[in-house]
Amino acid sequence: MVSQDLWIRPLRDVPLIKPGEDLAGIILASIGKAGWSLQDGDVLVIAQKIVSKAENRIVDLAGVIPSPRALELAAEVQKDARLVELILSESKAVIRQRPGVLIVEHRLGFVMANAGIDRSNVDGADHALLLPLDPDRSARAIRREISTRTKVDVGVLVIDSFGRAWRNGTIGTAIGASGIPTLLDLRGRPDLHGRPLETTEVGWADELAAAASLMMGQAGEGRPVVLVRGVTETGEGPVADLVRPKEKDLFR
Amino acid sequence: MVSQDLWIRPLRDVPLIKPGEDLAGIILASIGKAGWSLQDGDVLVIAQKIVSKAENRIVDLAGVIPSPRALELAAEVQKDARLVELILSESKAVIRQRPGVLIVEHRLGFVMANAGIDRSNVDGADHALLLPLDPDRSARAIRREISTRTKVDVGVLVIDSFGRAWRNGTIGTAIGASGIPTLLDLRGRPDLHGRPLETTEVGWADELAAAASLMMGQAGEGRPVVLVRGVTETGEGPVADLVRPKEKDLFR
Repeated sequence: MVSQDLWIRPLRDVPLIKPGEDLAGIILASIGKAGWSLQDGDVLVIAQKIVSKAENRIVDLAGVIPSPRALELAAEVQKDARLVELILSESKAVIRQRPGVLIVEHRLGFVMANAGIDRSNVDGADHALLLPLDPDRSARAIRREISTRTKVDVGVLVIDSFGRAWRNGTIGTAIGASGIPTLLDLRGRPDLHGRPLETTEVGWADELAAAASLMMGQAGEGRPVVLVRGVTETGEGPVADLVRPKEKDLFR
Repeated sequence: MVSQDLWIRPLRDVPLIKPGEDLAGIILASIGKAGWSLQDGDVLVIAQKIVSKAENRIVDLAGVIPSPRALELAAEVQKDARLVELILSESKAVIRQRPGVLIVEHRLGFVMANAGIDRSNVDGADHALLLPLDPDRSARAIRREISTRTKVDVGVLVIDSFGRAWRNGTIGTAIGASGIPTLLDLRGRPDLHGRPLETTEVGWADELAAAASLMMGQAGEGRPVVLVRGVTETGEGPVADLVRPKEKDLFR
């Protein structure tokens, strides 16, 4: 729950990010150029793509040798076998496959298309961009850098666009977080009639990810950083709390 | 996409809604009391519960006679057989069942727990609250009333909290809309390198629903109306566009 107005503002002048660059520093410079000043409790929502780029999660497809399994699966789903090799290397299991569709359990537990690997918006046609190795750690590192340099305690949320079961269209979804709630436990909060709420867990960081996604545009690079002000819920990830364990999941 | 700041403000003094009441009028009165004035392009996000209440979608469980099928299923999922009867009467199919869990395809196409029927926050312990008969129509009617009375063209979005496959926690999700995009088609919009985007459809109204949900609190009645200002995408539902047809869905 948030008890005041929520204000969501995209940062407009973030430069293209190159591997190895200091993402926290670049974001702070852009915030300074925009004339903003961060406040304790602000949340910076960052598109996965620029986190992955800064962490050099770029793979040149020319150097990828598909395994026999990747070759077979690539033929079945009609995708580039080198891309399928990368998808498999980033995944624990294939959840669904159809021509044009490959939905996997990512090594981080996310059920998602193509292990979150993206070929658009990457320099050069034959490059692929993987998710960060550990997006919660990425969020913590960015948060720590910002805190060290500014003495302001912000939350950081890294998001990607996910497809869903049952519904059309992607929505912004949390993949890494620090300094914000992820799964919000409402147990013990009564409803208006004093009875316990039936809904006891809210995917709070996913709601925030979706909200920020409205302001990013879907290319995710044009406005890859969004500032959210007005959050009053407090908590501390990780995003792993949002991942339903396989044994409790009825849909894989 | 939204090209300016987004501002999300809960309306704080909405009274409890009773069956048959003029919801648009009550919302406008609350907006007036709060000293706000609506602007063209504002979006009013409204919790399903108060729409259902105004439409008298309240059922007294004492008058529900469970069918043999409801009795059998209720025993299997360990739920009140009268509630299960209502769930079945609101559904096209049972998608998954486990003790404590009943996930159905609602007659409107939504895959959701318990057909969206809620027993919390309803006056009297033995009442259930069903989804509106046609939430898109509800949204259109509220929008039309507001337009007639204020000459302002607002969008209206009716939302509920949905569980998801694969992830813990509920998130605010669109069930009815008027005057806003629901599924946003990005085909033809190039990425930063001039290539077509890989992601071509965004669940825009679901992102907006999630954003507004952050401000409602989960009881959904305390702050059941949220004003969103700053939306520049234009479109016209319906929410049916967000529902993936069964034959294209890999997860049911």
